[in-house]
Amino acid sequence: MPLRHPQLNERGELAHLLTIEGLPRTLIHHILDTAATFVGVSDREVKKLPLLRGKSVFNLFFENSTRTRTTFEIAAKRLSADVVNLNINTSSTSKGESLLDTIDNLVAMHADMFVVRHAQSGAPYMIAQHIDRTRRGEVHVINAGDGRHAHPTQGLLDMYTIRHFKGDFTGLTVAVVGDVLHSRVARSDIHALTTLGVPEVRVIGPHTLLPGGLEQMGVRVYTDMNEGLRGADVIIMLRLQNERMRGALLPSAQEYFKHYGLTPEKLALAAPDCIVMHPGPMNRGVEIDSAVADGPQAVILDQVTFGIAVRMAVMSILAQS
Amino acid sequence: MPLRHPQLNERGELAHLLTIEGLPRTLIHHILDTAATFVGVSDREVKKLPLLRGKSVFNLFFENSTRTRTTFEIAAKRLSADVVNLNINTSSTSKGESLLDTIDNLVAMHADMFVVRHAQSGAPYMIAQHIDRTRRGEVHVINAGDGRHAHPTQGLLDMYTIRHFKGDFTGLTVAVVGDVLHSRVARSDIHALTTLGVPEVRVIGPHTLLPGGLEQMGVRVYTDMNEGLRGADVIIMLRLQNERMRGALLPSAQEYFKHYGLTPEKLALAAPDCIVMHPGPMNRGVEIDSAVADGPQAVILDQVTFGIAVRMAVMSILAQS
Amino acid sequence: MPLRHPQLNERGELAHLLTIEGLPRTLIHHILDTAATFVGVSDREVKKLPLLRGKSVFNLFFENSTRTRTTFEIAAKRLSADVVNLNINTSSTSKGESLLDTIDNLVAMHADMFVVRHAQSGAPYMIAQHIDRTRRGEVHVINAGDGRHAHPTQGLLDMYTIRHFKGDFTGLTVAVVGDVLHSRVARSDIHALTTLGVPEVRVIGPHTLLPGGLEQMGVRVYTDMNEGLRGADVIIMLRLQNERMRGALLPSAQEYFKHYGLTPEKLALAAPDCIVMHPGPMNRGVEIDSAVADGPQAVILDQVTFGIAVRMAVMSILAQS
Repeated sequence: MPLRHPQLNERGELAHLLTIEGLPRTLIHHILDTAATFVGVSDREVKKLPLLRGKSVFNLFFENSTRTRTTFEIAAKRLSADVVNLNINTSSTSKGESLLDTIDNLVAMHADMFVVRHAQSGAPYMIAQHIDRTRRGEVHVINAGDGRHAHPTQGLLDMYTIRHFKGDFTGLTVAVVGDVLHSRVARSDIHALTTLGVPEVRVIGPHTLLPGGLEQMGVRVYTDMNEGLRGADVIIMLRLQNERMRGALLPSAQEYFKHYGLTPEKLALAAPDCIVMHPGPMNRGVEIDSAVADGPQAVILDQVTFGIAVRMAVMSILAQS
Repeated sequence: MPLRHPQLNERGELAHLLTIEGLPRTLIHHILDTAATFVGVSDREVKKLPLLRGKSVFNLFFENSTRTRTTFEIAAKRLSADVVNLNINTSSTSKGESLLDTIDNLVAMHADMFVVRHAQSGAPYMIAQHIDRTRRGEVHVINAGDGRHAHPTQGLLDMYTIRHFKGDFTGLTVAVVGDVLHSRVARSDIHALTTLGVPEVRVIGPHTLLPGGLEQMGVRVYTDMNEGLRGADVIIMLRLQNERMRGALLPSAQEYFKHYGLTPEKLALAAPDCIVMHPGPMNRGVEIDSAVADGPQAVILDQVTFGIAVRMAVMSILAQS
Repeated sequence: MPLRHPQLNERGELAHLLTIEGLPRTLIHHILDTAATFVGVSDREVKKLPLLRGKSVFNLFFENSTRTRTTFEIAAKRLSADVVNLNINTSSTSKGESLLDTIDNLVAMHADMFVVRHAQSGAPYMIAQHIDRTRRGEVHVINAGDGRHAHPTQGLLDMYTIRHFKGDFTGLTVAVVGDVLHSRVARSDIHALTTLGVPEVRVIGPHTLLPGGLEQMGVRVYTDMNEGLRGADVIIMLRLQNERMRGALLPSAQEYFKHYGLTPEKLALAAPDCIVMHPGPMNRGVEIDSAVADGPQAVILDQVTFGIAVRMAVMSILAQS
């Protein structure tokens, strides 16, 4: 029987961060509380803490993402870690066996942490399980996005942002809007929101971009955006990936914007103090109107700032486990 | 009305380094004086100063240039900064809007300095103005070369080199030779030389590679190299870019060398203690003969050494503003 | 007449590490002894030593190798050096002249060490000789693999591994198996083994993958693997490069595995405590069976761990010369 919480060690501490699914509520709050202590650090004249001094953090990006890699690189360097960036061509590691040989090699170099981005769902799990089997406790794995599955640090920074602006989760209505089907961000956010006790999580999108089984995740599904936004305290817009726009799933970007693009008019249906979030990078004029993206309710750049603190928090918690 | 000195703050301090045009003479000398204090640092056993400790310097290279990126990376690391290199594919940021979203994101990560290289003239300006509009004073921009427009740190290191070998600018004849039309180095050098009071700045090149309006910049134009070099104290050779050599502007590299390549014979027309400069990388046998490039009057590698110190100076001055 | 030991300075100290050929036995042992002091460092909580603080190490990779680059990067960072990675497209430096201009530029930036990987045999020599001619003693060159010629740090880490597990070299039978013809690892290992006094060095492979002149290097040649492995204390498997497998030199990977792949059955012919080494990355099922690669006699990951310590040793010794 597989472990139910492969990312926790026997003492219940975080050993890897692979997904938000199954993370205890207290642990999520512990990560957010730790992040709060780091928010000030990035604001100081000297933005360095020695918590990871002499530790080796490897950014293993099997899928290219300059943006995400940069946030982890900055977070690790502000904790004084040594950072090595590896863009690994997936073609050279197409066989699982050979991927694990690569991992074994890096472990043998006395790595302390792997930040793993991979196009295949589950790759960070496979790596973490392999390490636990062979060199348990020596290297911690952070999932920086795997396929359509999970993007837990994005989910955590989204929760940090909501808690920062709304104080508490227990009275909120949160709407997640867009291409939920292909979004690892949506999946991580929904797990986090329900774990943290948000009473009403809504998902809004066209039928073709909504996966089955959403109701079982504890969310309410809307295909009419106007209806779904009504009274929302938080709106999380999702990025529409370019390849979807000219695919069979959608008629056109213009048509999508008409129905699911967040305009000032649609935003007016939400609560007056509703905040607008987006994981970036934004497609202005596709899923979000510039007037909203640059407007007073958008907290999109705050998300980025908090994201550094959250990643610092995850790394420092893992380093102590 | 646009600000005349968008790179100076209200106290007249350097807030960004975008161009040499319009920089006050005293400020240029202040940069060169500061650089002089750093020249020794690179020579020491431990080549580190803590001036930028905890600062985050982002090398934003929208145009690839390993060579220039390396000089900034080394300069920043010798000042103890954290350096993040981003090679940003211009195709993914073809719309100005999306470029500014990228910038906003990096600013939100609490960047301290952007070193920007861009194929489009004016891109570093646009970035600096955007920052000044939204997060004034938080991030400093250094132009590391924009299109045909400017390459101010190259201009400054050239001035450092001239001052080092000649002591003073006010009695000099300086000749800039080659493809002035496409050269951001030439433009930056001419502005610097005239600002610093060089009484005779000459520009030498074939008609097809000389831009209009040179006389208004305060320089004398020559198409005959022998005439232009006569009595020169300093010769600044420009790189002939490969794409020009087989274009409509030039008959051939051989023909170019014959008329505008710097040979020992041509160099003999200049002052006996004339120094020879080149921004690199050199096309030996095209714009410069190896006998000159490796000869006793060449100070080309000194330029590289001084270039590190000048970039350290610019960064440390910006960090204090 | 060329110097016989271009990598030693006039005091007999290591000035560059270009090849194991001609390195005195005492110097090899000095490197291994120094490495032994670093093995513990990578195991500690804080894996940093200040020995190269303020030094600039340039990884000059004219041939791409993420794996090897990473080992040098980690080694340099654990010694507190500033590391700059340069992937230099060989096409832009196809002329030797222009390669040396690149080198001159980096030297002028006050580099302390060049780690050079190049597809052409001899390139690190040319660079070292150029530096010795122009800026003697200022920059140390480490060969990180040049063409088919040498890979001295791999040779040294292999010797470290053998000494670690076998204690002494003077009673050993060592078999090097596979594509010796194209292997710089094999060449470096053979020079090291004979210098260190291994009485029996055997080379095993098909005729088409064995170079001429092996006997003059002091080794015994076998084309029958069963015969060659008999009684061996150490087996060094070589990687079969993919391009060989479908070339004229070999019938097929399957056929190769049948004759020269290391299986448990073949391994049983060696001494009972024989260790199995491989420089990586492995082709499982081609030159080595997974049962052997993951078996109790394999020390392949120990090689990786020792490799970091050996590279730290080489760098720290060079920095003191």
